[in-house]
Amino acid sequence: MTEFVDLSYTIEAGISAYPGDDDLKLYQNRFLDKDKYNDTRLETGMHVGTHIDVASHIMKSNVVISDYPADKFFGKGCLLDVRNQDAIGIKDEYWDIVEESSIILLYTGFENKFGSAEYFKNHPVVEEELADLFIDKKIKMLGMDLPSPDQYPFSIHKKLLGNDILIIENLRNLGLLVNIEKFEVIALPLKIRAEASLARVVARVVSFK
Amino acid sequence: MTEFVDLSYTIEAGISAYPGDDDLKLYQNRFLDKDKYNDTRLETGMHVGTHIDVASHIMKSNVVISDYPADKFFGKGCLLDVRNQDAIGIKDEYWDIVEESSIILLYTGFENKFGSAEYFKNHPVVEEELADLFIDKKIKMLGMDLPSPDQYPFSIHKKLLGNDILIIENLRNLGLLVNIEKFEVIALPLKIRAEASLARVVARVVSFK
Repeated sequence: MTEFVDLSYTIEAGISAYPGDDDLKLYQNRFLDKDKYNDTRLETGMHVGTHIDVASHIMKSNVVISDYPADKFFGKGCLLDVRNQDAIGIKDEYWDIVEESSIILLYTGFENKFGSAEYFKNHPVVEEELADLFIDKKIKMLGMDLPSPDQYPFSIHKKLLGNDILIIENLRNLGLLVNIEKFEVIALPLKIRAEASLARVVARVVSFK
Repeated sequence: MTEFVDLSYTIEAGISAYPGDDDLKLYQNRFLDKDKYNDTRLETGMHVGTHIDVASHIMKSNVVISDYPADKFFGKGCLLDVRNQDAIGIKDEYWDIVEESSIILLYTGFENKFGSAEYFKNHPVVEEELADLFIDKKIKMLGMDLPSPDQYPFSIHKKLLGNDILIIENLRNLGLLVNIEKFEVIALPLKIRAEASLARVVARVVSFK
């Protein structure tokens, strides 16, 4: 059987939205004994939990995430172990290991702050020159165990999204990929007319180290 | 490049909910010029557009869709061409072509009614003995270009879900799979604590006929 590593947070009542956004609500509004079926209603913005941003989140653009063909959301995965760095910069080896059309995952270890107020503050950020390398390499998406690759005024967001590199935020379980040699990333958003989408993100293991 | 066929409807304002359910709402509530970013808020039940049901939708069960490991949502695809049948019954050949752990797609052609009131009424239904075959074969999921495999009192829902065969409703583009010999189905719901989830469903083409 193929092995999968699930990189997505569970969407449930109480999950924290990005500061300034409205809270997510999830509640049952149809009941088996009364209505003959159960149904749950979700009320949320698109930037809660594991999700994918496109350019219209932060820039003038009419492109919505449902405009992208499915191919954008599948790619060869590559984990960069960037733990214990406040500013995530370039390393010479990245020129060799980052491949065109791949999906790069930044493993910062900051997942262990998820659920605390600190998670949204003082998190590691991506440096401009590393973003430039990703643009040069034409990667499909950049994912991370962070709420954002930057802070206001979000220059890294603009640089990546402006070059059609989508951003996957709030990943988890990236530590489980350290011992995996080769994996595919499948990061599927809803096909929704919006500037981002909640997403299910998994890694499919091809071979172990 | 791998070819994908997207089997999902676009989630947008105006998409029809199942009769009796509350409508989906999708609206922008943060604006780039005022708030410095765009955000879209979604308010919806879990049974709108392309989605996946688990047993707790219609039966007593504490299992929610976020409890399933990702492996459940990937499988070898098999399209059954069942156009022009009001009651979708068994055919001898199905015993050969339906494989264990596969994801079976019923292509009824009823997609052409999507968006009309008729789509939810008088749609084709799955017969009990065909559901029994799927249970016997231990398939992972059954998908279809219909709002439901049955009508009230939903005996096919209960039979399939009670045997851990998840149901994918409101698929589209199944006609594009007729000329494809071999494909994988990737039907990823959100990892959400609910009895169902909106889902992104795609077929990845392995070989053409």
